[in-house]
Amino acid sequence: MSGNKSYLKAVLLKDVKIECGLLAKKNELVRKEVIPYQWKALNNEIADADPSNAIKNFRIAAGETEAEFLGMVFQDSDVAKWLEAVAYQLTTNHDEELENLADSVIDLIEKAQQPDGYLNTYYTIKEPDHKWTNLAECHELYCAGHMIEAAVAYYQATGKRKLLDVMIRFTDLIDSKFGREDDKIKGYPGHQEIELALIKLYNITGDSKYKELANYFIDERGQEPSYFDIEWEKRGKTSHWKDFRKIANGEYYQAHKPVREQATAVGHAVRAMYMYCGMADVAKETGDKQLLEACKRLWNNVTKKQMYITGGVGSSGHLESFTFDYDLPNDTAYTETCAAISLVFFAQRMFHLDPAAEYIDIMERALYNGVLSGISEDGQKFFYVNPLEVRPEVCQQRYDHKHVKPVRQKWFGCACCPPNIARLLASIGQYIYSYKQNSVFVNLYVDSTVDLELNNNEISLKHETNYPWDGNVKLTILKAKKPDFVLALRIPSWCKKAQLKVNGEKINITELIDNGYVYLNRSWTARDTVELSLNMPVERVSANPQVRENIGKVAIQRGPVVYCLEEVDNGSNLPAIYLPDSTELKAVYRSDLLGGVTMIKGQAIKLDESTWSGRLYSTENLRYKPIEITAVPYFSWNNRQAGEMLVWLNKMN
Amino acid sequence: MSGNKSYLKAVLLKDVKIECGLLAKKNELVRKEVIPYQWKALNNEIADADPSNAIKNFRIAAGETEAEFLGMVFQDSDVAKWLEAVAYQLTTNHDEELENLADSVIDLIEKAQQPDGYLNTYYTIKEPDHKWTNLAECHELYCAGHMIEAAVAYYQATGKRKLLDVMIRFTDLIDSKFGREDDKIKGYPGHQEIELALIKLYNITGDSKYKELANYFIDERGQEPSYFDIEWEKRGKTSHWKDFRKIANGEYYQAHKPVREQATAVGHAVRAMYMYCGMADVAKETGDKQLLEACKRLWNNVTKKQMYITGGVGSSGHLESFTFDYDLPNDTAYTETCAAISLVFFAQRMFHLDPAAEYIDIMERALYNGVLSGISEDGQKFFYVNPLEVRPEVCQQRYDHKHVKPVRQKWFGCACCPPNIARLLASIGQYIYSYKQNSVFVNLYVDSTVDLELNNNEISLKHETNYPWDGNVKLTILKAKKPDFVLALRIPSWCKKAQLKVNGEKINITELIDNGYVYLNRSWTARDTVELSLNMPVERVSANPQVRENIGKVAIQRGPVVYCLEEVDNGSNLPAIYLPDSTELKAVYRSDLLGGVTMIKGQAIKLDESTWSGRLYSTENLRYKPIEITAVPYFSWNNRQAGEMLVWLNKMN
Repeated sequence: MSGNKSYLKAVLLKDVKIECGLLAKKNELVRKEVIPYQWKALNNEIADADPSNAIKNFRIAAGETEAEFLGMVFQDSDVAKWLEAVAYQLTTNHDEELENLADSVIDLIEKAQQPDGYLNTYYTIKEPDHKWTNLAECHELYCAGHMIEAAVAYYQATGKRKLLDVMIRFTDLIDSKFGREDDKIKGYPGHQEIELALIKLYNITGDSKYKELANYFIDERGQEPSYFDIEWEKRGKTSHWKDFRKIANGEYYQAHKPVREQATAVGHAVRAMYMYCGMADVAKETGDKQLLEACKRLWNNVTKKQMYITGGVGSSGHLESFTFDYDLPNDTAYTETCAAISLVFFAQRMFHLDPAAEYIDIMERALYNGVLSGISEDGQKFFYVNPLEVRPEVCQQRYDHKHVKPVRQKWFGCACCPPNIARLLASIGQYIYSYKQNSVFVNLYVDSTVDLELNNNEISLKHETNYPWDGNVKLTILKAKKPDFVLALRIPSWCKKAQLKVNGEKINITELIDNGYVYLNRSWTARDTVELSLNMPVERVSANPQVRENIGKVAIQRGPVVYCLEEVDNGSNLPAIYLPDSTELKAVYRSDLLGGVTMIKGQAIKLDESTWSGRLYSTENLRYKPIEITAVPYFSWNNRQAGEMLVWLNKMN
Repeated sequence: MSGNKSYLKAVLLKDVKIECGLLAKKNELVRKEVIPYQWKALNNEIADADPSNAIKNFRIAAGETEAEFLGMVFQDSDVAKWLEAVAYQLTTNHDEELENLADSVIDLIEKAQQPDGYLNTYYTIKEPDHKWTNLAECHELYCAGHMIEAAVAYYQATGKRKLLDVMIRFTDLIDSKFGREDDKIKGYPGHQEIELALIKLYNITGDSKYKELANYFIDERGQEPSYFDIEWEKRGKTSHWKDFRKIANGEYYQAHKPVREQATAVGHAVRAMYMYCGMADVAKETGDKQLLEACKRLWNNVTKKQMYITGGVGSSGHLESFTFDYDLPNDTAYTETCAAISLVFFAQRMFHLDPAAEYIDIMERALYNGVLSGISEDGQKFFYVNPLEVRPEVCQQRYDHKHVKPVRQKWFGCACCPPNIARLLASIGQYIYSYKQNSVFVNLYVDSTVDLELNNNEISLKHETNYPWDGNVKLTILKAKKPDFVLALRIPSWCKKAQLKVNGEKINITELIDNGYVYLNRSWTARDTVELSLNMPVERVSANPQVRENIGKVAIQRGPVVYCLEEVDNGSNLPAIYLPDSTELKAVYRSDLLGGVTMIKGQAIKLDESTWSGRLYSTENLRYKPIEITAVPYFSWNNRQAGEMLVWLNKMN
């Protein structure tokens, strides 16, 4: 219905069927465990966990019960993200019971909506006279954004318009309140999110006022005088959060300068990443090259100077924020699950604007590492913070590590991450393929089938692989209504040697590669096969020497998967282990372990601590002993027992 | 006048004359620069520095002027420590002008004393009705302790009793208020200090009630129910410091259990160390073996599990506290100057109870490193926090490093450290020698002369050395009224090869060594010489592998002096430098640099950053380039220009 035709688009979730493999398992986990578990959580039914109260807040706002609002000012968004995950699930798997449940929640949401279209249970219940008075701190527009996303997804999944209509009414109210006209509030959200949601609403309705509102929010941000200062003065210098004005400045919410002038990722990481997504969306829909350049600058800063090897971003627990270039401490890393998720969102958007493999390389780095680490193998425990080095007693006893939890939690008082990971994994099918005119792009290697229409062509592909555990991929053309189209396959940056065969015949890919994709432009017929073999040795990765915490260290990576050592396999005091440059590291697939993962085994050495009893410092020669090490995928850590974990190992020349 | 005769005692400051060398220079710095500078500071006369107001507070309390109390609740103690430093200075150097100034300050203090003997300007001015209601947080007994120390020192220096009498009156008031009797407050100080001061008062007056009061404070501490809880309830659950009750628990002030049962250093480091000093003093004066055992346990925990190589203790900025065994991060190290100073105090006390070189080894480690680092070469700037790794932009931009200042400060709102270092360096002469019966112990090697009386003997020694820059020491007997006495010389633990000659004749010391001291028991006559040659190569020191931050790293040490690299000598990104095990490190004395120091030079290698442009992670082989490194004494860092500093260097096998 919209969009600049020269840009790529994602193949829709409904057209992709994931068959088996790691991501299929995680997708199934969301369906079978996570969505039911999170429904319980939203209804305060998880023992020994912070109560959510999110559903009850809607019941209060709907007049069904009388009670106090409980939870965060943005508690509604947990319901929105859960509904969005449900919508994706219903897109791929019919489930009448779940759909009925979702319909009942939507009925409740509709009932909680105010006559003028307003929808936010915190303000409706607690501060009905103070709506829109504290955009900086109180997340009204953020919650609206998430509910718009849920509404669009639910409409796409079921064809049912009720939630969409609720959110159109609310968005129309927002549109009537915000803007540069004299009778409007010249504000913008404290926590960005609605910008990207408005583009989704624009795409589904075709109503350009939503695109213009998104554009307004993007461009008004950071203008002088600061709207957040103005509203603060206006409401009598009160804060929703204790000391908020003291600790948060313009950089915290990326409102320190106009977004087009921003070149460095600063402030709260999730706000920043959602904003970059919104900027990319607006750039795509408006063709605004200057905005696209700003997106590229910010992308480069994030991914080339401020990103952990896991794809985690936002290194500081203080204000959940970016800090400065190359500042990537491992043990105090904040790297919120939501931030890695939003890097996936941003990467896909950038790829669609600028089809280079680099974006998808980062997307899969974040996905297989910093995102998947956020959820336990049983789908019922979550990391909010994803450190790269953990020693439980340090987390428990050191104040500057108090944000790092050594084990996944059942739920959180601020529970943004669990439903966010649910909605991403439930919709993972839409990240695998993209298309443009007569080209199909295979971005992620995931065992699946896809049916798509392009340029009046109808194409079906079968995609077989055990990725990320091995690098062999086989694509079979199931259907090609017209024979001529381009199949573009990503050669991941981690792969130094790739082989490609078409119908069993080896193809020299060197000349076919552009920006990391092999473009196969030919006439295809059903049963044609493409076999891609990505050489996937175990690699030792070094970090830029500006990252001081990683000097003298290496990380183990195989394919897109980053590995770590756990105490359960390797004993305690993991930093005393040295990985010699010369020793061989072997990949061993273990179907019985951690839901089926490839482990890495090898010989290393470890400082001999036995000679040190009672001494703190010594000039004696150090003694080492051999040790066999076992590394497991970073995302899978802490699924067996609590203990130490370490990604960056001491290297020995 | 008191003391168990079987224990050692320090040779008094008045009997030691320091001639030249590093410590003599620092001592002179205190006389010429620090004392006058700090007098200005106490009178708010330092531009661009936090105003102290400490003298003005006394003027207000004395009724000389009307104004608000300003500063910390313990601001009086800065005046007390300054006076104590002045007293030590007057002991060794006559200075009529300074003595007149001190007398006038003492007149003012006397005038500020209340009719009942009470003395504390905060309570007198601000909360006269709330004396003794908040021992936990408000430092009344701490301030009293420091002023008692000043009074004793001033009396010893000048024979003038005025301040001593003021403090006897106040201490008698305290004695009438505190104790286990029904009509007394069963409390004890929130910040320990008065315990050790009371023993000094006991030693100077011979009045055993002061010893008993010290003993009471030591033993009442940590009893159940907690006095701090009782007084908190009683005063209506108010706190002097915001959220104090939330963040500080019994461990914070070592009141979590009776002190005799404590085995691990916990909580606020300076409180802990002052308490251990008080415990050792009480153990010495009472012969209490159980208390001595507790002191030894705590000594062992502090020095064998919680001490930096610099002698700094208290690793956490949060609550200025100890954390747990082997938790010694370099870049966030708190290691308050006062804590290193109090380790010197504790070490001397332990040595006097148990004459083993180990205590003095630690004393000199703290003195030459973690203490001296606290003051600038010009005596006008100070470190409160003494980290072992500094990158200015990290200190400035990372919240969890905000306590670390990359440059020394002119003064502090909480200015405990500057006058504390002044009083220690002004009294450094009394740490050099100890005695017992007919034995003289030479603890620190410092160019000096000493005159002392023991067992009716009168002995004078001349002590020549350029320590710590070389290990040659020459002692000459100037006078020995009776020939038979024991000269005991410490063989420092850093020294692996020591040679000793008496009157030019080599002595085999192996059999003469006990607990790190060579005991020379012979008949001495004037002009006898003892030449000690301590081999002092440049050493590479490793840390116990439980100290994770130092795994794979070495520190450079020569003699007792720990070295560091500074950016001004070695360029930026110091952690990218590797010190190969095999390269030679050379000591070079430079009289023109940093007031005259021995530098260390050698060949090292550094990661080549030039190949990394625009990349964050890579599987390529690392490239290194040769670099000549220059290390300077840790204590001397940041006297040329701001920049990076690093103690623990990457090691390369």
